[in-house]
Amino acid sequence: MAVKSMRLDEIAALLGGRLEGDGSTVIHGIAPIQDAPPGTIAFVSNQKYVGALRTTRASAVLVSPAVAAMGLAPQGVALVILDDPYMAFARLLQRWTDAGPRRVTGVSPRAHVDETARVGADVNIHPFAFVGAGAVVGDRVDLHPGAYVGEGATVGDDTILGPNAVVHQGCKVGARCYLYAGAVVGSDGFGFAPDPRTGQHLKIPQAGIAVVEDDVEVGANVTIDRAVFGETRVGRGTKIDNMVQVGHNAVIGRGCFIVSQAGISGTSRVGNGVTIAGQAGVAGHITIGDGAVIGAQAGVHGDVKPGERVLGSPAIDGKAAKRAMAVFPRLPELRGRLREVERRLEALERGSPAGPLGSREGATP
Amino acid sequence: MAVKSMRLDEIAALLGGRLEGDGSTVIHGIAPIQDAPPGTIAFVSNQKYVGALRTTRASAVLVSPAVAAMGLAPQGVALVILDDPYMAFARLLQRWTDAGPRRVTGVSPRAHVDETARVGADVNIHPFAFVGAGAVVGDRVDLHPGAYVGEGATVGDDTILGPNAVVHQGCKVGARCYLYAGAVVGSDGFGFAPDPRTGQHLKIPQAGIAVVEDDVEVGANVTIDRAVFGETRVGRGTKIDNMVQVGHNAVIGRGCFIVSQAGISGTSRVGNGVTIAGQAGVAGHITIGDGAVIGAQAGVHGDVKPGERVLGSPAIDGKAAKRAMAVFPRLPELRGRLREVERRLEALERGSPAGPLGSREGATP
Amino acid sequence: MAVKSMRLDEIAALLGGRLEGDGSTVIHGIAPIQDAPPGTIAFVSNQKYVGALRTTRASAVLVSPAVAAMGLAPQGVALVILDDPYMAFARLLQRWTDAGPRRVTGVSPRAHVDETARVGADVNIHPFAFVGAGAVVGDRVDLHPGAYVGEGATVGDDTILGPNAVVHQGCKVGARCYLYAGAVVGSDGFGFAPDPRTGQHLKIPQAGIAVVEDDVEVGANVTIDRAVFGETRVGRGTKIDNMVQVGHNAVIGRGCFIVSQAGISGTSRVGNGVTIAGQAGVAGHITIGDGAVIGAQAGVHGDVKPGERVLGSPAIDGKAAKRAMAVFPRLPELRGRLREVERRLEALERGSPAGPLGSREGATP
Repeated sequence: MAVKSMRLDEIAALLGGRLEGDGSTVIHGIAPIQDAPPGTIAFVSNQKYVGALRTTRASAVLVSPAVAAMGLAPQGVALVILDDPYMAFARLLQRWTDAGPRRVTGVSPRAHVDETARVGADVNIHPFAFVGAGAVVGDRVDLHPGAYVGEGATVGDDTILGPNAVVHQGCKVGARCYLYAGAVVGSDGFGFAPDPRTGQHLKIPQAGIAVVEDDVEVGANVTIDRAVFGETRVGRGTKIDNMVQVGHNAVIGRGCFIVSQAGISGTSRVGNGVTIAGQAGVAGHITIGDGAVIGAQAGVHGDVKPGERVLGSPAIDGKAAKRAMAVFPRLPELRGRLREVERRLEALERGSPAGPLGSREGATP
Repeated sequence: MAVKSMRLDEIAALLGGRLEGDGSTVIHGIAPIQDAPPGTIAFVSNQKYVGALRTTRASAVLVSPAVAAMGLAPQGVALVILDDPYMAFARLLQRWTDAGPRRVTGVSPRAHVDETARVGADVNIHPFAFVGAGAVVGDRVDLHPGAYVGEGATVGDDTILGPNAVVHQGCKVGARCYLYAGAVVGSDGFGFAPDPRTGQHLKIPQAGIAVVEDDVEVGANVTIDRAVFGETRVGRGTKIDNMVQVGHNAVIGRGCFIVSQAGISGTSRVGNGVTIAGQAGVAGHITIGDGAVIGAQAGVHGDVKPGERVLGSPAIDGKAAKRAMAVFPRLPELRGRLREVERRLEALERGSPAGPLGSREGATP
Repeated sequence: MAVKSMRLDEIAALLGGRLEGDGSTVIHGIAPIQDAPPGTIAFVSNQKYVGALRTTRASAVLVSPAVAAMGLAPQGVALVILDDPYMAFARLLQRWTDAGPRRVTGVSPRAHVDETARVGADVNIHPFAFVGAGAVVGDRVDLHPGAYVGEGATVGDDTILGPNAVVHQGCKVGARCYLYAGAVVGSDGFGFAPDPRTGQHLKIPQAGIAVVEDDVEVGANVTIDRAVFGETRVGRGTKIDNMVQVGHNAVIGRGCFIVSQAGISGTSRVGNGVTIAGQAGVAGHITIGDGAVIGAQAGVHGDVKPGERVLGSPAIDGKAAKRAMAVFPRLPELRGRLREVERRLEALERGSPAGPLGSREGATP
């Protein structure tokens, strides 16, 4: 069975690590280093995250001897020192989440499974879940109440559809995915043709599908539209937070992070390992290179190179954006100084230097 | 029974107020002073809202004799003058909304209520609502079609879950709450740890819960994530508009207003009486003090002091932001003026004043 | 019935276009120009995509005579030349996807239709759909699983409610509408009055309804609030993308496009033929004139004139915004140059010209 908490000395013993800190500290959870609240244990493995050690709020961190030797951890943050912090972290995670054998309740008589659907072994199809004609549901799939698998749709092994999650007709969701409550995969893309004569809009049939590859998480109330033709696609291992929008024919690569309320417009291509932070927007027909990082609330209107970090609306290079954002609040002051410069310059040109005013702030054109 | 409209003289008589204005005016609704459309009646009680009287679009306003004497109301806005406008407003509200005795329909035979769940008296559990094992549902609760109360979850007395609203396993919703259609309380927080070798992401177990205290409104399609451990919490009396995101381990105080499409990232702490306007975003691990006001579309990346008003992305002091925003459209002009100043300065340094150009606008570097 | 492939000469004949290329080529699919693999037909309508013609791998492209005359298409790519490529594309798509006569399955015994509801002919009311007391459902309506039509609500002929789409009590949805999965029409508006003594908030009754006129599309997980009194209204032929918020008492005109994640606050009035791009926000009590265009992520805090294009947050004239946005990244440079000007000016005033510094960048005040 999964544990709910462990003492730090128990954790060190379990993982075979050397403890620096108070062994009686109780750890209640596990978290990524940047995001770890007090009471949790985190890890640092990648060189990239060593800096996060300085400011972590975790109660303890798994580190290598080399990282421990840097002495970066804040006062009061315990260290568990071992050769492979990531493997140790993964082991600890498993201990934490081991829920014991999975309960199998089968197909509820109050669920609706079309007689032409194919349903795998050991599924849990709960009351009010719906599986349409010709749909294929893999082994060990959980369909929670109100979950919907449309006609001819496919749901891979070990995938979970939360309450009221929807996979529309013909769409494909891979194995080991989690679609949270209210997530919608494969509703129609937003495509209309304005009739120049009537001003009305003709709907473009959205004849394609949406494909969600293996190991993808799709957050609550996310919407992923089906393609106008062909596929909208979310690559293997990509994690999508709540209320993200993915437009028709967008293609998102593998291992991406897309944070809450971000929006990716139609026909955009997002590479592998891309991070798109909260409330950011990507315009249509944009290409974002592998490993790029799109900042929170950014508005991306042009292609982004692999590894590039962008910020702002419209989005520009992240460092340049931060420098400009730092100057922004001083715009009124800069305007006042410019006005003052103009005044003094005019005086000089007239042959009578004016000298600086006592207060530059008051000067406005 | 509730009324749908009243003449202004009827309202004045009901409340025992003195009417200044046309008594035959028909009032169709009740509204906050700043937000009141024509046809409604509003009130001014707090000194803070006296200014709103000047620009209100309400057809009538309940005011004290002192406020009436200020003569601020626009032409055509009637006044109902009484000693305690707020109490009068509350009385009027009651008259307006008194729906008579509540209908009790009990548990529909087409709902699913687990035999181990505890369900209070006088509930309405509609068709296709789901109550999981060990869940506790209070007295006079309404669960509309498709509403979901997960295993071991708690729903307090007099609370309403709209159609397809979801309370996940183990989460707690207080008394007199309203979760609107499609709201999701307690789906997994967004937490993953990257494997430095494979680039893949291990899911961090989200072992905590989400708690919604008494008298909270949770708008349609809102998402409130469960904690990595411990609690995500929304304080008593807080009102959350549609499609707001609340990340894992966030703690929101009492009596807050969070407007549509705002997002509050994980582990942030929002004080009491805070207003977060529409589409604003609060980054992770931020503390927002009591009574602070976050402007629409603001991006909050640092702590906000009690009572502070911030605006912009990144958010800064609201007044400073407004001043800088006012200068922003003139950036091209300022650049041109700077170029011109440089030209004239160079001429002066050479010993031959150039004088101002006829048009500064054209000058760009 | 839908076709699976067509010869190019058949396509040209069907659309009344002039063919340049090999008429015997068989087309197997339809695709967006940038993603079109060999064997498909694409289109170029927007000036912005003319460049994509150079590199397309499509076997054929629908183009206007003007675009054809540019001679951009690669060797071997056939052109079908006609006056309105987008309309032709839409027609072709319809031919491709024509699913033949509509299947009628009637009212599922697992749906819940109140005995006092009126239901039209040839409907499909699927399992777990709910129709409340006194509701009126038109002919040929589809209510997908989990769809909800509240007490006294009206749904017009040929309208489709996707899975878990919600129309609340008393609200009205017109004919030929499509409410996608999880869309919510008519949940309570966000209206509260603060009690000056306790700081608590009294709920303002939302006694009005929401009206969606004919031929409207309402995207997945959209929320349209009911009015405080009277109506919130969405005009005929307006298309609303996923996760858009429409506040109480807002009135949206006919033939508008409202793109994903945009938000329109309470009591705002949007004219006819308005485009509101993704993630834009419109404050309360704003009037937007016919044909106006609100840019992506714009924050509209004042009225917008008919035909006006606005951009930015706060939104200003679109061209002015773009010019200012272009200068924004150079703010640090401009500040440095200003500082340098001040230095040189001071020197001049002292009677000893300083001349320009080698590097202006380093100069910060």
